[in-house]
Parts: sequence; C-alpha cells; structure tokens
Amino acid sequence: MTAPVRIALDAMGGDHGPETVLSGAEIALGRHPDMSFILYGDEARVNGVLAHHPKLAAASRVVHTDVVVGMDDKPSQALRRGRYKSSMWRAIDAVKLKEADAAVSAGNTGALMAMANFNLRTMPGISRPAIAGIWPTLRGESVVLDVGASIGATSKSLVEMAVMGSAMARVLFDIECPSVGLLNVGVEEIKGVEEVKEAARILREENWGVNYHGFVEGNDIGAGTVDVVVTEGFAGNIALKTAEGTAKQLASYLRAAMGRSLRARIGYLFARDAFQALKEKMDPRRSNGGVFLGLNGIVIKSHGGTDAEGFASAVDVAYDMVRYELLARIEKSLVGHAASVTPAPQPAGVEGQS
Amino acid sequence: MTAPVRIALDAMGGDHGPETVLSGAEIALGRHPDMSFILYGDEARVNGVLAHHPKLAAASRVVHTDVVVGMDDKPSQALRRGRYKSSMWRAIDAVKLKEADAAVSAGNTGALMAMANFNLRTMPGISRPAIAGIWPTLRGESVVLDVGASIGATSKSLVEMAVMGSAMARVLFDIECPSVGLLNVGVEEIKGVEEVKEAARILREENWGVNYHGFVEGNDIGAGTVDVVVTEGFAGNIALKTAEGTAKQLASYLRAAMGRSLRARIGYLFARDAFQALKEKMDPRRSNGGVFLGLNGIVIKSHGGTDAEGFASAVDVAYDMVRYELLARIEKSLVGHAASVTPAPQPAGVEGQS
Repeated sequence: MTAPVRIALDAMGGDHGPETVLSGAEIALGRHPDMSFILYGDEARVNGVLAHHPKLAAASRVVHTDVVVGMDDKPSQALRRGRYKSSMWRAIDAVKLKEADAAVSAGNTGALMAMANFNLRTMPGISRPAIAGIWPTLRGESVVLDVGASIGATSKSLVEMAVMGSAMARVLFDIECPSVGLLNVGVEEIKGVEEVKEAARILREENWGVNYHGFVEGNDIGAGTVDVVVTEGFAGNIALKTAEGTAKQLASYLRAAMGRSLRARIGYLFARDAFQALKEKMDPRRSNGGVFLGLNGIVIKSHGGTDAEGFASAVDVAYDMVRYELLARIEKSLVGHAASVTPAPQPAGVEGQS
Repeated sequence: MTAPVRIALDAMGGDHGPETVLSGAEIALGRHPDMSFILYGDEARVNGVLAHHPKLAAASRVVHTDVVVGMDDKPSQALRRGRYKSSMWRAIDAVKLKEADAAVSAGNTGALMAMANFNLRTMPGISRPAIAGIWPTLRGESVVLDVGASIGATSKSLVEMAVMGSAMARVLFDIECPSVGLLNVGVEEIKGVEEVKEAARILREENWGVNYHGFVEGNDIGAGTVDVVVTEGFAGNIALKTAEGTAKQLASYLRAAMGRSLRARIGYLFARDAFQALKEKMDPRRSNGGVFLGLNGIVIKSHGGTDAEGFASAVDVAYDMVRYELLARIEKSLVGHAASVTPAPQPAGVEGQS
C-alpha cells in the first residue's frame, strides 16, 4: 500500500473560485481515491462550499488565507502583496515544506510561475523553469514545452527542456523512449535560429538520455510526429493559442454548416452521437493542466476559465506526476548525463556541459 | 481601358511543374481576361503543355530556360547555380526589367526569397522583406506577416511590417483603415519581447498611417480580431503551420466520427452538401499565395504542392496586387510618415524615425 498523494489546492484561484476548484477536486478524488487535499483560501467560503462535498471534506483540511492573487495582478505585484499569505503562495509553500506532493492553481500564470520559481527554486542542473502542455494529436497526445514561462531560449535551456519533457512523457504516456523534436521553421539557411541548431547538435552528439528525432515544424505538433515538442516560450505560447483559435474557428464553421439547410439539420440529428464523440475529442478540458517543469516541486496550472471537469483534469495530471515520480525521473536523466560525460574521455569537438 | 496585367511565371517551379502552373494560369485568366503571361521554363515541355491550353497560349509567350531550381536547393546553392539563367531567376528579373508587373513561382521559398531580395532589393525605407500570408478567419480574412522570410525582428522592422501589411489589407479587402495587431504572449512582465513593446509604442505615438489596435494573441488570428497581424518570422511561420496542422487534425477527426456508425453515415449522406460547403471553406487552396513585401517589385509564392486551382489563387493575388497598386500604396504610407515627422515639431518624448 503506497502513501496517498497529497495535493495542495489554491481554492481561490481561477475565474470561478472555490465552487469550481472543489467540485473539480471531488471529481478527481472519485478517480483516484488515494488522494488527500489541503485547501488554501477564505475559510468561511471554502467551508461553505465543502459542506456540499462530503466525500471531498473527508479527505481534506482547510487552511485559512486572507489574500487572493487577482487574475490580472502582475507577477511583481502578486509577489509583493501575496508572498507568505495568499492562497496561491501557501499552496506552493506546502510543497516546499513537504506537507504536500504537488500544488494546483487556476490562478494567473505569471504570478504562479513567479511565486513557484521564487519559493521552490530551479532543480540543480536546470537554468530556468518551463511550462509543459499536453497536446492532443492524431496519434494520441504529445508534451509541448515551453508554452510561455520565458521568452528566448539558449541552446542549453532547450536541451534541458528536452530532458524534462522526455521524463514527463515517460510518466504520462508510459513510453520507455519518447521521441523528441525541436520546433523549427522549414526554411533552410535562415538566420537567427543558432540556438535551435546548437541544441540539435548537442542532442545528437551528447548522451542526455533523449531519443532525439530532429527538427519538426508547426504542422507536426497536431500530427503527433514526436512525443515531445521542444521550443522557446514565445513561439510555444503562440503555437498553443493559435491551435486553440483554429479549433474554435473550425467548430464554428461546422455548427454553421450543420444549421444551414433542412437536409443538413436532419443529417445532424442522425449523426448526433458522432458529433458528440467529436466534441468530446476536441474538448479542451481533457488536456487542461500546464506542468511547471524544472522546479524543486510539482506545480500544475489549470486554465483560469475552466469548469469543474477541466479542473479535475489538472488534478489528475498532478496525481500522475507525483505517483510516477516525475521529479526523480528528471533528476535521474540529468545525473545520468553527468555520469556519462564526466568520467568518460571527451570525443573530439564535443564540449562538456556544466 | 487600363493596360493588361503582365505576369511572369516560373513554369518549372513546384512539385508538379508546368502542367499545374499552366492549368492554374488558365483558370486565373478565365477570371481576369486582362492578363498576359511570360512563361519561363524548358521550351519543349512548356510548349507541349501549352498545346492543351489554347486560351492561355493566346495570352502568353514562352522564354526558354535551361536551369531549374530544385525544391530542396539551399538558397545559396540556388543563387550560385540559378542566377541569370534559371526559370525562377528570369521570372523575377522580368519584374525588375519592367517586362512584367509581378512574378509568381511555386518553387522553394528560401531560394525564391534569396533571388528576389538579391535582384529586386528592398524598397527605400524598408530594412528587410517579409512574407505575408492570407489567413481565413471567423470574420473573413486577415493578412499575417512575417510567415517566414527572416528570424528575429527589430522594433523598426515590426513597424515596417505594420505599414506594409496595412497597405496589402487595403488592396485585398478594400478597407480604408485596416486594424493592425502585434502578436504577443498574454503573460505580463515577461522578459525578452522588448522589440514588440517598443514597436507598440512607436505605432501608438508616431503617425505611420496605421490603425493600431494593440497586442493580440495566437487565438485572435483565427477569430479575426484584427485585419493585419504582425509578428517576427519564426513565430509567424510556427503559427501558420500549427494552424494548418490543427485544421488537418480536426478534418481527420470529423471523417473518423462520420464513419464510425451506420447512423453517422446516414447523417453524413443527408448533410453531404453542408460537408461539401465546409470542405470548401477549409480548402487551403483558397488562401494560397504568400506575398513578398518590401521589395522593388511584386513576387508571389505559391505552395509547392498545390494543384491548378491553388496556383490560380496565387495568380489572382498577383493580379490584385498589381491592379490595386500595392507598391505605390506602401510607398505612399512610408512617404506620408516621413512628411508627417520631418517638418512638424516633435512632441515631447517622441523620437524621430529614420
């Protein structure tokens, strides 16, 4: 019998507050009964909602906090106002204090990353954290990172992301050697992607325990060409939101097409189950949960605007990351690399990594 | 009666060669009878195909070229092997020599941009060329640039793109003051997008004749929030290809859903016309034609793998750009700005642009 997975929840985060967070937690608890929760937030409000969720109440304790980080607070502002005392900070702090195994918040991304980075610090060997998203593809799902933690990657941080993304894909998809691609543009000899080219060289020539596939382009993400797509945070965030926008656009075209004639409406009625299945397949709630990678602790970001089902997905991701020991696997990959390069003689032309 | 629009075609470019190029040109000629063509390519092959297209033949002359730029040639290789004598170079050169008003090629993007840039040079006041794509949106169409001409933009080149993209949207969509957004990520205070912030400041404070809307995110492209989306070439290329990949992915989901049960198949039969309309709406051939902006001449890139209908769309775009005087409009915007900043007293805190 393994120990339960302890999740710290920022009960006040997100557009809909404790109602959504707690309902979501209860859904996730139904799927993973070996979970316990610490709920940080306004005690009166949280307990009021908890009264409607007896199963969740039995697996939870509530810790009162006064301060709520606003959805529009700037990271610096959130740190100034919310450090030590906000529900967001306290949820992260529970991970640091080993009272919880992971923190989940639907609060604002910039503030959450700033607080997580400030409090948990980056793992040894990792220069900066990244946010990894789970992307539905034609072949299943892929891990895509960085989707917006920082702008402008060095070759070293791209390599680190390849290592962390591989570990996450191993945990999530149960694949021994997930394939990793570096996102690039398909234009030869173009200037300015030296970091990406250099990262490719490092992944090809050095032993980082990464199954490196090569460059991939934007259309390869949805095709599922590789299990892990690595890119710098600006392009990654643009890619993620562009895909979301395109999916919405096509769903809207489809609705319009199905309503434009009597025949189409009859067809829709016949195929309703199929449309329902399609809708579920395209449901963004299913892949909710951005994973902060590279920190000394597990923090998961849920979309702020999601509903209980979506928040439950983010809690599921936290559960998997803890249960399958994401951090230990990332550390193992980093240490494995260090062991492989430190004592062995260096091949000519390959520089050691610090 | 206005003079005909003279189009120089790289008859050898693209995956399918003269057959597709010439069939496409004939389709476009049917829509715009006031066009004439110069066809650069292997004389025997081109004349062989032209024999099946008598209408096109009557509006064309053929110029023999020996060298074909390969679809995988690197730009430097293409310049070395193909300068002065390839079908691609000669089509561009016809624009330079004022024998044609625009060049269209389905050949490889990098080679075409390198040759166009080398031969036509950038317009006065423009520091580097950009590739603009036409993006179908929920509100119609938008211009998105740069989708891959160069990596890493300065604030100045972003402002130039805003000016050029506005001129193109004015020509294509017949809007007096197209709205312009700068693509950005939604994370506050994030590091490294100083160029984008500075470009925003310039567009807000200086008179560039641009209807500046503000920052937009990836999902705003498909929503059609603005008429012109400006971004640096790496992110723009990733966005374009990610959207293409997502559209393919969803089309594949839809096909699978419609085939999964008898009821769904019956529904599909009833709604077939609606599906056909949806398919046409999503048809990537309708928005084929990347426009090279910022050069002393009009060059249009067609997708290499497109068919005759797609190539015809690229020729249509060339026609519109010539007929509605794209270059003169870009020049007017640039000159208008210069006039507005040079003699007038500078408001405090606003620096002049060179």
